[in-house]
Formats: sequence, structure tokens, C-alpha cells
Amino acid sequence: MSSTPIPLAHIRHLIVDMDGVLWRGPQVMPGLQDFFAVVRAHSLRFVLATNNATKPARAYVDRLAELGVSIREDEVITSPQATAAFLAAQSPEARIFVIGERGLIEALESAGLRVVNDTPETATHVVVGLDRGLSYTKLAEACLLIRRGAAFIGTNPDLTFPSERGLTPGNGAILAALQAATGVAPLVIGKPEPEMFRQALRRLGGTLSDTAVIGDRLDTDVLGGQRLGLTTILVLSGVTTEHEAQHSSIRPDYTFEHIGAVAEALRRALS
Amino acid sequence: MSSTPIPLAHIRHLIVDMDGVLWRGPQVMPGLQDFFAVVRAHSLRFVLATNNATKPARAYVDRLAELGVSIREDEVITSPQATAAFLAAQSPEARIFVIGERGLIEALESAGLRVVNDTPETATHVVVGLDRGLSYTKLAEACLLIRRGAAFIGTNPDLTFPSERGLTPGNGAILAALQAATGVAPLVIGKPEPEMFRQALRRLGGTLSDTAVIGDRLDTDVLGGQRLGLTTILVLSGVTTEHEAQHSSIRPDYTFEHIGAVAEALRRALS
Repeated sequence: MSSTPIPLAHIRHLIVDMDGVLWRGPQVMPGLQDFFAVVRAHSLRFVLATNNATKPARAYVDRLAELGVSIREDEVITSPQATAAFLAAQSPEARIFVIGERGLIEALESAGLRVVNDTPETATHVVVGLDRGLSYTKLAEACLLIRRGAAFIGTNPDLTFPSERGLTPGNGAILAALQAATGVAPLVIGKPEPEMFRQALRRLGGTLSDTAVIGDRLDTDVLGGQRLGLTTILVLSGVTTEHEAQHSSIRPDYTFEHIGAVAEALRRALS
Repeated sequence: MSSTPIPLAHIRHLIVDMDGVLWRGPQVMPGLQDFFAVVRAHSLRFVLATNNATKPARAYVDRLAELGVSIREDEVITSPQATAAFLAAQSPEARIFVIGERGLIEALESAGLRVVNDTPETATHVVVGLDRGLSYTKLAEACLLIRRGAAFIGTNPDLTFPSERGLTPGNGAILAALQAATGVAPLVIGKPEPEMFRQALRRLGGTLSDTAVIGDRLDTDVLGGQRLGLTTILVLSGVTTEHEAQHSSIRPDYTFEHIGAVAEALRRALS
């Protein structure tokens, strides 16, 4: 694998995936500290963006702090936060029935939105994130509401979730069940859909021409970035192998082995 | 609506759907008793066939008895029974993890099959029927097993289930979630797939040319019957409207308003 030595000198803003880029489960990627050192040294602005709907932004700040990297909480965006921001702007009066975990409910309530799981029959919106407490009762409630016309919103489309035991159903599988039962496709906020990327861009104040997406997935990070017209950087430290990258119809602008190699390229480009 | 006065004189065997044909929820269809009287008078053999995976065959015998119609239990076939018979013939040594209700588990065990929900890691097969006690834990277990290579079998593909509160997710929605999370399509036993029809035909001793399917759904009863080459009879007393029937690409051989009209036609044809 040879990284492509192309200037990244135009890049001033970064939208960075975390799982598979900064770490993979317990394993920390080589060059992680170096990457943040380069980014800070050159005053690049960044947002760490994750589809994961089960953890709050604070958890990522804490994990990086343990690794010696200090970031602010507003340098992280999660799909529950992006969903909450979207709804707060579009439908501040929404009455929301939630399938999801504590992190999603807290994100919605922190944005001033109203969760009505105690009186679901009054809901105008159904918001679905991965819920490891999922039950038939919750699915039935969501199904009845969506069939009656409630808006149907998904935090993220990931079909699987990397649990300790292996790949278990992700939020995309729950969305698939509800779409099958209702005939209604959800509006999805997370990658590769544009909404979370758009919010990240607004936080950064970046433009399409000076912002890059860094991720390990062709079908979320790279595809989503390309749809918006952003520069895309694939790292091969996550789910995508070099072979897959070479044979995919989705072509990132740049490919590197890992975030450490991205750091080196940025240092060369910006020094 | 004019019923089509075409001879049914060649019909000696019937495969009859129940919900939407004999009754719809609490409402009993006109001519139900007359239908069974004609069938018995002319010694037609029949099997009542349902995709519903939540009730045992006995429940249908009992309901008909309350309506003054006496049938035998082996004149009913349910998708759990058909699934159990299929597995008992194909994979008698199967170790089965079940997502499903009591009726499905009993059908499998009555066929001499082994349900291993207490030790799911030993399962070779995952069998999925509608389970109103569905949980994320059950979905995760099934997902891990299917991803490891366990066979993936669904009792029936119905996307919705007519509950007292309205249409809630059917077994097809659970299958959709698992297919999304595993990338594996289930082998489905119930209508419109051929396996349950084939078993009904074997029970009847019927041939393709002297057996008719009676149902209220174009996409299950009629489509499934046509795929096997059976005569198909649509009744308009269930989910299919006359308008839908006239504009569908699925064309039954005969269409009647309700089972009472089928009874009249059979009486004329066979007398």
C-alpha cells in the first residue's frame, strides 16, 4: 500500500470519523497523538463525527483525554445530537416517541424537545436509534404511529453494531423492520446522508473546497462526503481493505494506511 | 361486482385461506356454513391453510365448531406446522433457536425437533415466526447465529399483523431486520412460497389440475397458487377490493364476492 503523496495544502477543516480511524475497539491507531498535534499546530478546525447513537459526546472527549489528547465537547458530533439539532430547527413543537437508548433521549431533551414515550398516542414524530432494550411493544407503537402519519426519522442507517460478541443488529436493521411494516422510508440523519455532514460544516465554518472528510468506510464517510462535494480521505485501518478500496466504484480523493500517515501528509503539505 | 359463472366441475380439492375468507376479525362471512355443507355433500377434500404463526390448528377447529361446522384438526395447516414438517423431513437433527411464540415452539417439538433456546450457541438453525415477546437480545442471538452460518428459516412473510389496535409489525418485518443485519435472505415456508402449499397438496392427495386455492390476497394466496399451477379463486371479502383486483397484474382464475358465492358456484357445478 502506497499512500498517495498529493498536496492537502488547501485543507483548513476536517470532519473525522472515529471508530476505525482513531481506534478500533480497544486498539488505538498509530499516530493518533501526532495527528492532533499537527492539526493544532496548523490551527486546522475539526469535528469528530460518529453515527454511533449509544454514547454521548462526552464519552469521546473522555477517551481522547485518557490518550493524552485534549478536545472540546463541541468538537464532537454524534447522530443523536445531529437528530436533535435537526428537529429543534425544523419542528420545535414535535412530540416525539423514541426508540433508542438514554443517550438519544438526553440529546433530544437537551435540545428542548419533548419526548412523549409515556403518552405515545400523542406523538407527532417517531425517532429511532439503536436500542438494545428494543421490544415488540416499542416496534408496534412506532408502527401504529407511522401508519397514522407520524414523521419517521432514523439517527443512522448502520445495519450492524460491533458488540463484544460480534456483529449484532444495528439501527438500520430496526429501521428496516419498521419500513417493512409501514411502507414508509425513514428520513436518516447520520452518514452517508447529508444532514450530519451539513451540521458539521456549519460548526466548522468550512467551505466545500477547504474541508475534508476522513473515514474508514467507503459507503458512509467517503460516499457521504462525495455527495456534498467535500474532499474525501480513506484510511485502511478500519473495515475497508486495500483490495476492496481498489475494486470499489466509490473512489476517495486520497487513501492512507492510517491516521498517522494522514498526519505526515498534512505536516508536509502545511509546513 | 358480478361473479364469473364458470364451471368449477373439475375441482375435487380445496386449499382455503381463513382470515378474510371465512371471517374477518370477529365478523363471520355470509355463507360460511353453506360452503362447508356443499363441500361435505360433494365429498370435496379441503385443507384450511393459514400463515398465522401465533395460534395452533386446534384454535381454528374450535372456532368453526362454535359456528356449527365440524372439521378435523388435520384439515388445518398453519405455517408453524408446515415449518416443523419441513424441518423434520429435511433436517431431523436440527438444533433450533426459535424467535416465536408458544405455538411455534410446540409445533417444532411435536414434530420431534429440538429447540435449544437455553443453549443458543449450539444452534444449527434459526426459525423465526411472529413473536410479540421479541427483544433486542433475541434478534442479536439470531443475528450472530445466522452470521456464523446457521440456516435461516421464516414461517411466513407477512409484513403486518392485524392486532386489536391496528396493523402492527408482522413476521416479515422481523425477517427484514435480520436480513438487513446479516445479508442473508430467509427460506420462507408460508404463502406465497411453495412449501406450505406443497404440504397441503400432499395431505389432500390432490393434483395440480383438480385443486383450487381460495383466498382474499392476490400477493399470497393467488400468486402462490399460480406459481404451483393450481386453480385460483379470489374472494373480495378480505383485503383485496374489486378495484384492486381489476388493476392488478396478478389475475385469479375466478373471483367471487365471498365464500357463500363460491358455495353457490360449487353447488351448481357439482350437482
